[in-house]
Amino acid sequence: MSEYTNPFGMAEMPPSPDRSATRSLKPFFCPRSVAVIGASRDPDGIGHRILLSLLSSRFSGTIVPVNPHATDVAGLKAFPSLTAVPGPVDLAIVAVPPQLVLSVIDECAAHHVQAVILITAGFAETGGAGRSLEQQLQERVRRHGIRLIGPNCFGLMNLDPAVRLNATYTPAIPPVGRVAIASESGGMGLAVVTAARRLHLGLSSFVSVGNHVDVSVLDLLEYWEQDESTDVILLYLETIVDPLRFRQIAERVGQEKPIVVLKAGRTSAGQSAAGSHTAALATNDTAVDALFAQCGVIRAQTLEEFLSLATGLSSQPMPHGRRIGILTNSGGPGVLCADSCAAEGLTVPELSNLTQSALAAFLPPTAALSNPVDVIGFATEDQHAKAVETMLTADILDALIIVHVSVRPEDNPPVAAGIVRGIRAARRTSGKQKPVYLCWMAEGDLDRTFTVDGETIPTYPHPEIPARIINRAIRYEAWKQQPLEPVPRDSDADLNNAHAICATALADRGPGWLTTQETRALLATMNLPLAQGGIAATAEEAVKVARELGYPVVVKLASHTILHKTEIDGVRLNLTDEQAVRDAFEAIRARLAQKGKPDAMEGVLVQPLISGGVEVMAGMTRDPLFGPLIAFGLGGIHVEILGDVQFRVAPLTGGDAAQMVREIQGYRLLQGYRGKPAVDIGAMEEVLLRISRLVETIPEIEELDLNPIIALPAGQGCKIVDARIKVAD
Amino acid sequence: MSEYTNPFGMAEMPPSPDRSATRSLKPFFCPRSVAVIGASRDPDGIGHRILLSLLSSRFSGTIVPVNPHATDVAGLKAFPSLTAVPGPVDLAIVAVPPQLVLSVIDECAAHHVQAVILITAGFAETGGAGRSLEQQLQERVRRHGIRLIGPNCFGLMNLDPAVRLNATYTPAIPPVGRVAIASESGGMGLAVVTAARRLHLGLSSFVSVGNHVDVSVLDLLEYWEQDESTDVILLYLETIVDPLRFRQIAERVGQEKPIVVLKAGRTSAGQSAAGSHTAALATNDTAVDALFAQCGVIRAQTLEEFLSLATGLSSQPMPHGRRIGILTNSGGPGVLCADSCAAEGLTVPELSNLTQSALAAFLPPTAALSNPVDVIGFATEDQHAKAVETMLTADILDALIIVHVSVRPEDNPPVAAGIVRGIRAARRTSGKQKPVYLCWMAEGDLDRTFTVDGETIPTYPHPEIPARIINRAIRYEAWKQQPLEPVPRDSDADLNNAHAICATALADRGPGWLTTQETRALLATMNLPLAQGGIAATAEEAVKVARELGYPVVVKLASHTILHKTEIDGVRLNLTDEQAVRDAFEAIRARLAQKGKPDAMEGVLVQPLISGGVEVMAGMTRDPLFGPLIAFGLGGIHVEILGDVQFRVAPLTGGDAAQMVREIQGYRLLQGYRGKPAVDIGAMEEVLLRISRLVETIPEIEELDLNPIIALPAGQGCKIVDARIKVAD
Repeated sequence: MSEYTNPFGMAEMPPSPDRSATRSLKPFFCPRSVAVIGASRDPDGIGHRILLSLLSSRFSGTIVPVNPHATDVAGLKAFPSLTAVPGPVDLAIVAVPPQLVLSVIDECAAHHVQAVILITAGFAETGGAGRSLEQQLQERVRRHGIRLIGPNCFGLMNLDPAVRLNATYTPAIPPVGRVAIASESGGMGLAVVTAARRLHLGLSSFVSVGNHVDVSVLDLLEYWEQDESTDVILLYLETIVDPLRFRQIAERVGQEKPIVVLKAGRTSAGQSAAGSHTAALATNDTAVDALFAQCGVIRAQTLEEFLSLATGLSSQPMPHGRRIGILTNSGGPGVLCADSCAAEGLTVPELSNLTQSALAAFLPPTAALSNPVDVIGFATEDQHAKAVETMLTADILDALIIVHVSVRPEDNPPVAAGIVRGIRAARRTSGKQKPVYLCWMAEGDLDRTFTVDGETIPTYPHPEIPARIINRAIRYEAWKQQPLEPVPRDSDADLNNAHAICATALADRGPGWLTTQETRALLATMNLPLAQGGIAATAEEAVKVARELGYPVVVKLASHTILHKTEIDGVRLNLTDEQAVRDAFEAIRARLAQKGKPDAMEGVLVQPLISGGVEVMAGMTRDPLFGPLIAFGLGGIHVEILGDVQFRVAPLTGGDAAQMVREIQGYRLLQGYRGKPAVDIGAMEEVLLRISRLVETIPEIEELDLNPIIALPAGQGCKIVDARIKVAD
Repeated sequence: MSEYTNPFGMAEMPPSPDRSATRSLKPFFCPRSVAVIGASRDPDGIGHRILLSLLSSRFSGTIVPVNPHATDVAGLKAFPSLTAVPGPVDLAIVAVPPQLVLSVIDECAAHHVQAVILITAGFAETGGAGRSLEQQLQERVRRHGIRLIGPNCFGLMNLDPAVRLNATYTPAIPPVGRVAIASESGGMGLAVVTAARRLHLGLSSFVSVGNHVDVSVLDLLEYWEQDESTDVILLYLETIVDPLRFRQIAERVGQEKPIVVLKAGRTSAGQSAAGSHTAALATNDTAVDALFAQCGVIRAQTLEEFLSLATGLSSQPMPHGRRIGILTNSGGPGVLCADSCAAEGLTVPELSNLTQSALAAFLPPTAALSNPVDVIGFATEDQHAKAVETMLTADILDALIIVHVSVRPEDNPPVAAGIVRGIRAARRTSGKQKPVYLCWMAEGDLDRTFTVDGETIPTYPHPEIPARIINRAIRYEAWKQQPLEPVPRDSDADLNNAHAICATALADRGPGWLTTQETRALLATMNLPLAQGGIAATAEEAVKVARELGYPVVVKLASHTILHKTEIDGVRLNLTDEQAVRDAFEAIRARLAQKGKPDAMEGVLVQPLISGGVEVMAGMTRDPLFGPLIAFGLGGIHVEILGDVQFRVAPLTGGDAAQMVREIQGYRLLQGYRGKPAVDIGAMEEVLLRISRLVETIPEIEELDLNPIIALPAGQGCKIVDARIKVAD
């Protein structure tokens, strides 16, 4: 039994939640007593402002200001030090100058404080001395067993009415709701919590994680996984610290609660900006997209989409299908909404005759009864109510978008009342089955909240937004429907031998490309479907191989130093007899001699000419942060010039491999096209899974490129025609 | 001299503006007296509300209510009919029931009213009787020589302080500015004019064109072209009635004033919605995109982008380059902004040492001096002012985006004052050279207007919006820099002969595909670069042609009834001797006989085997509304499966052809790739221009497909290997 094989051929299952870690975060969210260390009397001081936030949020526990120079702050009795505080302190919020932070941490430990929020900035984000201070801080909290949020953060809120904790320096309190938010940027957090009320975005809790030296976004994900007040989790991220753990946790949490991520630093300009901001490690955005696709994370493209997804997903049921009803009082915005539905892959189906007759019975004669239904500008409260109810209960629709343009300000209250009445009536007869989204273009009345028996109807300013939300929700649901597939483990691969080949090449020649011989041997250990062929060191050997294979054959330069064979004319196709093979060998040799590289030639690879099939490629590059990234695409220019390639992070599940093949733009070509048969999709998935297994097990493999692979008709597998593999220490 | 050749080989120049048409619109925008016909006393009546709008906008001219049943309406003396009105009436606004409209029009004519705005609905948009009424209306206004806006519209505004005309039924008056808007949807118009104040969108005038039976969007484009109060023109469209005229006018107007269009009905769902809304003809969205690219129209993708472009383009100078400075007080939003710049092809360059030192002199020590510059959350008014001035005058930057997140509400006024001071200082030293855009995330203070010596700074709620505006502005400027190229006219084409070939085929066989012989003859009349070859009716003829061409050759089925030759194995490649040619001929004949289609064979086409080069395609389909659409792409699956194809509306200019070739995703392949030489781009442009000339002149050509064309290395031209052409009456 070797170190590389798994005796039972079973997959590792995702780890269970870490409940002790989750418990250790409890004092942040539900402290009975909070000390503010650095509670200055200056009303502009951060500590003072946090104290005011705690007071104005009517925090349910005890608030203790700590200030060596004051006996009272903001009307509360102050203590000169934590030691002087009589009772226990569950949570310390620290806003002292950076040079005092370490001693305050020691003091917290001495006072048995389990949780610290460190607002103070001046750590790794300032480089140099700050970086070393941050390291000391991290060692200190680990040694003491204290959990710490920050430094360089903006605080934490728990909006649970039984707690009412606002430990940030903004007094703005969002509405209570079921969205939890963590932000790696204080400014972004500030922007979101202050905008929440206007956006009708109800929060359960909010954490600004700052430089996250201890409590990370992943810890919070696990906390909110258990949190009964949270239905949707929003993350603003500038880096992915531990992609493997992120994947495990997000995949598990995502089964229960949608995770929406706004990942900044997607471009090099953004990454360099993020680098100077939170000292974030640059992340490969392709890898981020791959990772998110694999673990069901909903990636918001912009801040607006981030916030729209939050309001849309937290208050509405998930749609069961793509058939959208549009109800409007104005043609143009209805058309824009219909366009946006089609652009997002949704349909706007014709309503049944029954539904149309029902609508005709109460709508004005000039109303449009097709979908979008246009009740026209002057429809009454009652007409709105009945139209909403009729559409929301129509069997043919999976979701309803209401688009309203205010004609007269005085019409807004009755129209709004009609909409609410209609939704309520539908909910009472059919339950909360279908999502409803509202585009409310009522100038002067934009802040109106639509609430139906405790349910908030998400309200957007533009008619194109709801379709986007619905599509993302449907894709998330589809991801959830996939079984949580274990990573497959093949038992017929000889990974020991594969490793030996790499180790020998490294020992012999150091880092670099494997020879053609080694490459073929390595792929053979994995039972990967190599095209037939043999390596020949002389022209006569080449002829012998060709004879065994049968004509016509292909003769190619075998070299681990010359990678683009076609550029030196090192590939000779469609050779039909011995003389042609001999000539090809000599021509390649002559060409290399002419180029002054006679030693670059290991020999030639002689292969049968494969006709038919479709050229595809599979490959792997290793990302410093994400590890192996597996790629799949059509061969030739499709990957390099057109960028039609799918990536996933290893290890791949069967579902990942299936998605990769199906999500390239050229997939239609693989399905059979213009009379050509469909290719063997399963064989390509198998290649991807075997590559994944190989590179995951053997870290010496730095790069791998199987290109082209000829995908043959269904049932006939595929053939790897060309391959190169690079090893490194 | 034939009907098809232009004796001087000169291009038609775009027509000059129609100044008489423009003059005829003057009474709509600058009437001295306005009659409201149908001025009901009911305050909910449309006529009454328009009267109130006129009054509350303090219209500079005379307002005359016409109501047969009242002596005064809304405090104004009313007249029983237009005939009873003593003085002249420049503009009549009509809001009477549809059945009275025709007689009111007659009355207007009798009273020498030159301009009518017809609010009344119930015309073509209701189908049947409404459609016929609309036709009568159109005949009536033409006969009388009256200009008419509407019917089924929401009115018109001219915000010129010397006029102050609000002839709509909303009392909301937008701020005065330099944007003119026309809308094909009343609701969209309503939404935009009511939102204008909140969005700081200053308008010069607004027109709801309704069913546009007389005054069209194109008339308005020509009016605003001459209008000194208008700098930017916005159009909400659901159809393009006359694409040729649209192109001519938009191309000319666009040279002076940017035209931003939100074209709804881009999908079939949207088109069917638009159809029931304004009876709009469905438009091919591919053709719309092509047309807009050709005439410099900036197409907004969403309502939000439409409005953002309006505010961004109307008040700021056009950027001279892509180098963007970002100034923020908060890291995260700065990163999002940098990401959006990179995504839009803009750069965020490092600032010079000089600029960084200048910033360091007054910014807090924790500020980030790289670009984005982060002044940090608590920067003062003075720090903001100096930072804005420093960045806006830095030579390395072409534009500035300021991103502000409010930390405390009380900071907003000083920060805003600092920003304005900084811009003013920069403008005074360097003039209004560079655009400035602001993302103002200051909850509770979102409506703040930033004005610098009469210049409004566009203010957006999200950090990703400005980059989009800047990129669109740069692309528009690049379009303007192209010379207004006349459509080239080649003199070596024999269009008479081309026409005769089509006419004969039509006369002989009726609509359908040309034979291989006809196709080749037709392409030859245009001097298009046909690959060599000859048609052979027997095997022996094929051998003879092959001998003349030299081996290897290709033998292909020649048939005008079997179009996908490869599907019936009708293409034999790489034939190296007589026997192979003979065998190929017989095999193709046998195959057709076996399929029961012996008569489908016109013979075979024998061509030399062309090796090297890159396969591309050029084609034409005829759109019922837009006429011939010319297509260009890489051959094979690139067009049909990957959709990597560019379209333009004929006639093509040289600039259009150049863009088409350069804007396919696969263009890099044509530029030379992996040691392959660049192909002859000019030859492909020439093919496109000749096709354009052909199909524009001969309307019988219904479809044309040159696929593949082998593009050879630069200087060697290209070869059309396969072609089919369909003719119709």
